[in-house]
Amino acid sequence: MQRLITLILLFSVTSPNFAAELQGQEIIHPRSVILIIGDGFDDQHVTMGRNYLAGHDGELVLDSLAVRSAVQVQTVGKTAPWQYVADSANTATTLATGINTHMGRVGTGVNDEDLTTLAEQASAAGFRTGIVSSSSITDATPASFMAHVSHRGCENPEIILGGERYGVDYEGCPQDATGNGGPGSIAEQILKSHIDVALGGGLKHFTTADPETGKTVLDAVDPEVITVATDREALSRAGSSLRLLGLFADGHLPVRLQGTDGRLAEEPDTSMLNKVDWRLGSVTQPEPMSCEPNPDYGTTPPLALLTEVALDRLSSDNDRGLFLMVESASIDKQSHNRNPCGSIGEIAQLEEVLSVALKYAESHPETLIIVTADHAQAAQIIPEPSLYTGIPVPIYSPGYVARINMPDGGLMTVNYATSSFPSEEHTGANVPLFANSTGDNRLTAFMRQREVYDAMAGFLGLAP
Amino acid sequence: MQRLITLILLFSVTSPNFAAELQGQEIIHPRSVILIIGDGFDDQHVTMGRNYLAGHDGELVLDSLAVRSAVQVQTVGKTAPWQYVADSANTATTLATGINTHMGRVGTGVNDEDLTTLAEQASAAGFRTGIVSSSSITDATPASFMAHVSHRGCENPEIILGGERYGVDYEGCPQDATGNGGPGSIAEQILKSHIDVALGGGLKHFTTADPETGKTVLDAVDPEVITVATDREALSRAGSSLRLLGLFADGHLPVRLQGTDGRLAEEPDTSMLNKVDWRLGSVTQPEPMSCEPNPDYGTTPPLALLTEVALDRLSSDNDRGLFLMVESASIDKQSHNRNPCGSIGEIAQLEEVLSVALKYAESHPETLIIVTADHAQAAQIIPEPSLYTGIPVPIYSPGYVARINMPDGGLMTVNYATSSFPSEEHTGANVPLFANSTGDNRLTAFMRQREVYDAMAGFLGLAP
Repeated sequence: MQRLITLILLFSVTSPNFAAELQGQEIIHPRSVILIIGDGFDDQHVTMGRNYLAGHDGELVLDSLAVRSAVQVQTVGKTAPWQYVADSANTATTLATGINTHMGRVGTGVNDEDLTTLAEQASAAGFRTGIVSSSSITDATPASFMAHVSHRGCENPEIILGGERYGVDYEGCPQDATGNGGPGSIAEQILKSHIDVALGGGLKHFTTADPETGKTVLDAVDPEVITVATDREALSRAGSSLRLLGLFADGHLPVRLQGTDGRLAEEPDTSMLNKVDWRLGSVTQPEPMSCEPNPDYGTTPPLALLTEVALDRLSSDNDRGLFLMVESASIDKQSHNRNPCGSIGEIAQLEEVLSVALKYAESHPETLIIVTADHAQAAQIIPEPSLYTGIPVPIYSPGYVARINMPDGGLMTVNYATSSFPSEEHTGANVPLFANSTGDNRLTAFMRQREVYDAMAGFLGLAP
Repeated sequence: MQRLITLILLFSVTSPNFAAELQGQEIIHPRSVILIIGDGFDDQHVTMGRNYLAGHDGELVLDSLAVRSAVQVQTVGKTAPWQYVADSANTATTLATGINTHMGRVGTGVNDEDLTTLAEQASAAGFRTGIVSSSSITDATPASFMAHVSHRGCENPEIILGGERYGVDYEGCPQDATGNGGPGSIAEQILKSHIDVALGGGLKHFTTADPETGKTVLDAVDPEVITVATDREALSRAGSSLRLLGLFADGHLPVRLQGTDGRLAEEPDTSMLNKVDWRLGSVTQPEPMSCEPNPDYGTTPPLALLTEVALDRLSSDNDRGLFLMVESASIDKQSHNRNPCGSIGEIAQLEEVLSVALKYAESHPETLIIVTADHAQAAQIIPEPSLYTGIPVPIYSPGYVARINMPDGGLMTVNYATSSFPSEEHTGANVPLFANSTGDNRLTAFMRQREVYDAMAGFLGLAP
């Protein structure tokens, strides 16, 4: 018996909860989940980032993580069981709630029912919670963890009533408006939520007045409950006892990098004869570009700094644990814009966030860190030169092309060729998932996106 | 001491080599590697296959494998350290030899030196070896495990001397020709190799005469050493004591599926006004198509049957183990052709091959099964309808589009938009790797393609 006790004590040193688990007790030490979402961060983008940031033979920080899975992205169809390509609203809703839904929906199911999010569950169970994004904090991905509206566009008290969006009539989500007895726009719901820290862009949505009351969302802030910071200085001054809302740009945060003089991918220039017959004439490829600092970035707080601030606040005097979602949003947004350097800079930001998370996990070993994408996206690395070089016809990529000068002296060529519209489409491939552990075997080699929610909830003891 | 012995005996039951390993002895039981290459089988293609074959919420056989990694594909550049997109010759050479090389090279390094392949190493060490492909057995992927020439085009004794290829002057690999003291064309080298079983297409390369000697490659076959089978019936009759060369088509094996009436992806049809300004006019999307049997497939032996035949022959009376490479080649070839149904049918074939391999591993537990791709490829699943539906301008994909009727009643839309040429380009994303085990921790979450060779060689005890 003495030996058995010694054995249990021995195990207890390596696994502090072994004894408690043996007795069927609840796990009481802090367990935490840090979910890092690279928006549109599919394998083409991962490789673009690796090639540029770590070198073609190098490794990203995320490549050092022990666990890698593929995640099937799912969107409930309206006229068939499924649509095969998703948007950030329905996928973030699935990651946040474990439920598949229609494109465009934020925290709501296919029948417009509110779905409880992991952040809400965690908060109710005593965990501290935070949401950080380089988009407007009201944008689809962060919103889906904090709010419930029928459509992602309903970010503020004005647009929720409908109007014009992208030059087109927009119906809004009138049933969700406070004037109609609803929970209000995304900005209003964030304010009313129990999220301890929400940091990102989107100030304009909090300063837009409700047409019926004339009041903005920020007008409702109780300074005894919540601190609002709109620049780095205010952020550093914020006391740690109150909830914190940080809004560091009117819209999305500016991105770190751009192409030479702001150049985006461009259409190869074909000659008149080529337009008559593809075998004739000639083609001029776009000039190579370099990635350079975006002058608009200015004093924007880096995503890694926001992550540090969030972790510091959430972990201080916390014996329960935390749930933090950090989104590098503009990998996707710059891919829509055909701006590969823009995406690469935001992959660098994601890498820095991951380093901050890994450092946190060193001193908080019961932390599950997951990096994943919400959906695949338009960029493709294509051959430079073409595989068919030598065949005497003009050969070029449809759509738009950027040829990027690489740090090693080579050229990496990326095309964007999903849409004739000024914004590229998402694509439908399964997305990668990287993690620092399997979370007690909850993460497996192949998962559906809803099962990533199940794994996070299970790891925190919040069984779905 | 008695207890220690009992313990060792106990371990010996679960791990037959525990005692041997404990004493530093060589592992003597059969260890085998089955490498399944899906040519161009990147995550877009994996997802196309899953959506069609298993259903959008279903799982492929490969999704059931416990291990998943990402593999960085690497090509040595000629004017810079790297090129960022590969071809099947240099990547198969890297998988076969652990050495990065130039595009187009088969079993040779950047200085035209012959590189020893895993099949050659395994054969020299007493393993039985086999190569199975749905391409010509002389095509880049299978060839890179068996032959050494400066360029993939040198498949037979005529073209190796140069001439015309794809309507363009081709220099061949004259230094490799037998008449010049070289090892001969790929077909000649396959015949001279120690490969026990080689099954695929490519009969025409074995029946092409050497312009200098007038002899074909098959003329050199010694029927006491090697059996040649050119149809299923001959295959079933082949005795098991000789080497086996199976050539079941003149070129590549026909594929199993095609689009409705042989339709490929098509260009969306835009109106005259749209050609003046992208915001004007209208667009007609290609009609949906269904995947149907390819009438040319006929009595072609399925890849799974060829795999079974190879495993039966290689494993009979074998106490050393085996190395078998099986390639589903036309996932890539049909993607070059913009034929998504063609690719999907060949993904189905890969799945069947994997099932055969898993069945083999049930009775041969020391079998490492790896499924991977050589490089990424052009197909992209795009939204149906566009994300921007509702905006009153014509919106369509550049390049070519196929809208596929899915078994569940939905539409999966795939675009091919990497090239103005009649054949699509490869792309540069890292590729997935699936495995039934880590091979004693040799397979990790992130690998470079040369490290996949290292893992296979290490698992077989053939330290590189």
